[in-house]
Formats: sequence, structure tokens, C-alpha cells
Amino acid sequence: MNNRFLDACWGRPTDRTPVWLMRQAGRYLPEYMAVRSRCSFLELCKTPELAAEVTIQPVDILGVDAAILFSDILTPVEPMGLKLDFVPGPVFDNPVRTMADVEKLRIPDPESDVPYVLQAIRILRKELAGRVPLIGFGGAPFTLACYMVEGKGSKDWATIKRMMYAAPDTYHALMEKVTMMDMEYLNAQIKAGAQAIQIFDTWGGILSPTDYEKYALPYTTKLINGLNRTQTPIIHFVKGAATMLQTVQQAGADVMGLDWHVNLGTARDTLGPQTAVQGNLDPTVLYAPKGVIEQEVQRILDENAGRPGHIFNLGHGILPTVSPEHAIHMVECVHRLSQR
Amino acid sequence: MNNRFLDACWGRPTDRTPVWLMRQAGRYLPEYMAVRSRCSFLELCKTPELAAEVTIQPVDILGVDAAILFSDILTPVEPMGLKLDFVPGPVFDNPVRTMADVEKLRIPDPESDVPYVLQAIRILRKELAGRVPLIGFGGAPFTLACYMVEGKGSKDWATIKRMMYAAPDTYHALMEKVTMMDMEYLNAQIKAGAQAIQIFDTWGGILSPTDYEKYALPYTTKLINGLNRTQTPIIHFVKGAATMLQTVQQAGADVMGLDWHVNLGTARDTLGPQTAVQGNLDPTVLYAPKGVIEQEVQRILDENAGRPGHIFNLGHGILPTVSPEHAIHMVECVHRLSQR
Repeated sequence: MNNRFLDACWGRPTDRTPVWLMRQAGRYLPEYMAVRSRCSFLELCKTPELAAEVTIQPVDILGVDAAILFSDILTPVEPMGLKLDFVPGPVFDNPVRTMADVEKLRIPDPESDVPYVLQAIRILRKELAGRVPLIGFGGAPFTLACYMVEGKGSKDWATIKRMMYAAPDTYHALMEKVTMMDMEYLNAQIKAGAQAIQIFDTWGGILSPTDYEKYALPYTTKLINGLNRTQTPIIHFVKGAATMLQTVQQAGADVMGLDWHVNLGTARDTLGPQTAVQGNLDPTVLYAPKGVIEQEVQRILDENAGRPGHIFNLGHGILPTVSPEHAIHMVECVHRLSQR
Repeated sequence: MNNRFLDACWGRPTDRTPVWLMRQAGRYLPEYMAVRSRCSFLELCKTPELAAEVTIQPVDILGVDAAILFSDILTPVEPMGLKLDFVPGPVFDNPVRTMADVEKLRIPDPESDVPYVLQAIRILRKELAGRVPLIGFGGAPFTLACYMVEGKGSKDWATIKRMMYAAPDTYHALMEKVTMMDMEYLNAQIKAGAQAIQIFDTWGGILSPTDYEKYALPYTTKLINGLNRTQTPIIHFVKGAATMLQTVQQAGADVMGLDWHVNLGTARDTLGPQTAVQGNLDPTVLYAPKGVIEQEVQRILDENAGRPGHIFNLGHGILPTVSPEHAIHMVECVHRLSQR
């Protein structure tokens, strides 16, 4: 049983620095593409055996210290009453714009509404058989609300910001409901066997520090407080949060995900020894020659300076055109260079 | 003569806080759209009388304290030997990928290669007749190189990062040439009458702090050192630089542009009294009701706490779907609330 990842989440010393890669199951792997060629992205998310298969691929291929469930943050939003499609980015035909829209949203029951997610977790725990821990995940309430209000990805997220500023009652009612949904959903993942939970706040960083504190933090805090986390560490990754790490830390997660815009050593000094960190190699470094990848891995390990509670990862998802060989090399460098 | 803007650039006290808006001449103004309906974006950039007309529009309509030349950062790149088009984002048919491509690039002579830019500046100085100062501008070498190497906008800028890491000689040769071009171009703007220069580094923030210091900072520093700046303050705006303000400050500009991801008061504490700042309202706040806009203006003025050397601006360009009435209101709030 490889417990490096969970030990690091809890701030315990490990023999080597554990490592996994955000989006490690994905398009850069020919083995993933082979599975994906037989079904749509949503079918893959909704077929437990296939989701489990692609979840395990990077464990075998890269030698990472954790598996992360293959799914999408928007999976549990669909049964709230929004029709989800990928073209290839996510699209909701009926975005949430008014208080009436918010009132129509229902809180799904994970066991009956997203059974495939929980089933995939159960299959994975059996198939992984303790080789590496399994991470479950969900979107942070703010990021989910971004997609629900805009109806799709956006450059400036003007629609949700307009709602936030001009119709705060609608905004807060929506956030309450999304937070409730998220809590049920992530607790169901924990009950099904997820051994850690990562909360992805991909868009929290579009807010100013003041607005993050007012409009996003209270809901993520409530979510984290509502999770059955005694045995299950919570990783909180807010992309673009480097200027407000202490604010984000108030949400109370065990591990803070870091993007590559902050020096990892500085971030650890800011956060203190009670919070573990995960990150933070620039994903584009995987395009570099192997020697440069090794230097950059060493630089980040040096910034951490041997402090317990560091999980090595990219600062954002692995890019689809990266060579798997370079990802394998990165994992190998982390393990070799961090050996105690 | 309204000297508020220049006084603030030099760190001198002013009667009210000066204000202008990045992209203040642009699509959100019906008056701009009327001019734009008669010609393409590039024709507008290349026709001095029209460029001057849209440059002056926001001075009349918004009551801002500075005019900024209407142009595009890629205008001077075209005569280096790259064919520029807008579709509507910028596209170069023949991007720079190899050392041979870099060697083919020529350093334009601004007077003969981009005469329309200098002519627009001369017209504007006459037409503005001292009402407000005129800001000239250019792209930072790194941002220009991003477009030259990718050939267009990008989500992850993987091509230039690959060049940076895997072909550093080519990268550095390109940056040297772009810096030379930029220096000639901005000095020509100063000679033609630009009373301040803003350097836009839209993409500097995609680099980690370590990479920014290694791959971008030396060139912006060289550029700024090479400008005839005794009478002409230099504003340096690196978007996404909130975690590396002190590194960016080393480039030596008189004014640091701030995006909305940093608290302006914290930034001023970090930068010290010798550097003026410009910013930093979240552009989406202009979608908010007028009362919220006023609160947010007040918050930023409070963060500055009356320190001289603050130019109010947005943290990024004004969004095309903002109502001009809200922009007018913002400018009015800045002037009213900052009155000494």
C-alpha cells in the first residue's frame, strides 16, 4: 500500500514526495484516446467501467502516487435541472438567470441521480486494491455557478458578475443551492470510498480578493465544514489565487493547491506548517527537454526545502499535446530527487 | 491645461485623482462604432485622422484626464516582415519559429514604416491643444514575441514556451530584435509628441515568477533604459503580475499598472513611495448598478489612502458590452470622491 499521498495530505513525513498530475487521465495518453474513440465524453463519464479504466491508466503508465476519479465537475449539475452537453466545451441550454430559475433547481440525490459516479468509485477501490489512494472531486460552488449562469465558458464571466453585483439575492440563493448539492455529492463520494476530495475552483481567481471573500469564500467554507472529513483530507485548488492565499486558506482545507504563479516556498511561509500544499510546476514545462524538466522539478523541491506536507503536481491540468514520455520523466524526477 | 495625470505619474500631489480607462477608445462607444463601420480595424489604425478622432472621443464623452493613442501593439511588428491581419483577433500568416525566421526580421524605421502612428500623434497634440496629455504605447517585448511565435492568440502559449525552453538561442535572438524595434518605435512616439508611454505586457503573467525574471524582465528593462524618458514617464502594465510586483518593478518604470487581483494598498506598501501606481478596478464592476460602482471606487481610493502617485484606471481594458453611462459615472465618482 502506497500511502505517500495521504500521509503528505495530513502533513506527515514521507519517504519520497508523492506526485500526481491534474487531468492525468486524458487526451495526451494514446490509451485514453483509444477508449474515448468508442464513446462521447459524457458517455465515458457515465459508464462506470470505462471511467474506472481511464482512471487507472495513468497509475500504470506514469507511476503516480494517487488516482483521481475520471469525471467532470458539471456531472452533478445536470440532475439539478440543466441539460448538459459538450461541444467540446460544456454548454447548458437553459442557464440560470432569474430567481425563478434558481427556484426550479432541485438538489439531486447522488445515489439515484448520479449512480455511475459512485459505482465508478466502488469499482476503482476494488481494482486499485490499495495500490494508490483514490481522489474524488467536485467543483467549488463559485465555479459551478459560473457555468450555470453563463451557460458555457466565458472570457470575462460578465453575466455572473452582473448577477452578483446587480441581483445579489438571486446570486446568493443560487450559491446556497449549489453548495447544498455539492455537499451531498461529495459526501456520497466519500461514503462510496473516495479517500481524499479535491475541490476545483477554476474561476475563483477571476474575482478580486475583496469579491472572493464576499461572494465565494463563505460558500466554499460552508461546503468544507459540511464534509465528513475526519478520515478524508480535503484539497482546495483555486486557480489564480496566488495573491489571496491567506483568504482562501480560511475555507479550512487540509491541502492548498497552488498554481505556478507563486513561489512554492513563499506560499508555504505564508500558509504556515498546518496546511499542506500541492503543486506547482508550470504545465508548459513538460514541453521542455528532459534536462529542463529535471531542473524545474529540483527547483520546486528546493523551494519546499524538505518540509513535510508537499504533494508534487502541475500548477494546472496537463496539456493535451504533451508527450506522455515527458510526463513519465517528470514523475520519475520527483521520486528520484526527493528520496530521503 | 489639465496636468493631473502627468503630475501623478511623477508622484506629485494632485487636486483630484486623475483617471483614464484602458481601451477607452473602443467598441463600447457608439461614436467609435460609427467611425469603425466605415473601415476595418487596421485601416482605422493606419489612417491618422480617424485614429485621432477616436482617440479624442472618450476625452469628450467620459471626461478622462488623459488620451491614449488609438493603435494596436502589433502595428510596428508588421514591418518587421510579418503579415498582420485581424479576424477579429490578430493573426500572422508567417509566424517566427526558427533562427532563420528570426534572422529574416528587419528593424523598422518608424518614420518610413509606421508614419501613420507618428502622424496621428502630431495631429492629436494639435487637436488636444493641452486639454489633457497624450499617452503613447507599445507592447512589451515578451507579449509581442508571444504573438510573433504563436501566430495568433493562444490559451496556453505552448509554442513560445517550447521555444523558450528547448531553443533558448532562437528565443533570445528574437527577444533582442523585438526589444530593438520597440525602443526605436517608442522613442519615435516620444519624439513625435507622446507625453507618457505605456508598455503593455498582456502575457507576462503567464510566466512563473522565476521564468519572468529570466525570460522577460531583462528585455523590458533594456527597453525602458533605452527610452528618452527624462520628460516622459513610463507606465509598465504586466497583467497577472500581482505575485511578482517587486520583480516587475526592477524594470524601472515610473508607474506600475496593477490588475484587480491585488489590493492597491498592499501593492503600494510593497512597491514603496518612489513608484506611482495605476489601477485597479475590476472591469466587470462597470456592469454593476451605479451605487456599487461608487462603493468600489471609494474602496480603491481608501486603499490608496491619499498617497500621491495614484492614477485611477481599470485593472484591464473596458469590456465591449459596458454601457458608456456607467463609464461616465465611474469617472465622475473618481473625481468627486477624491477631491482634496
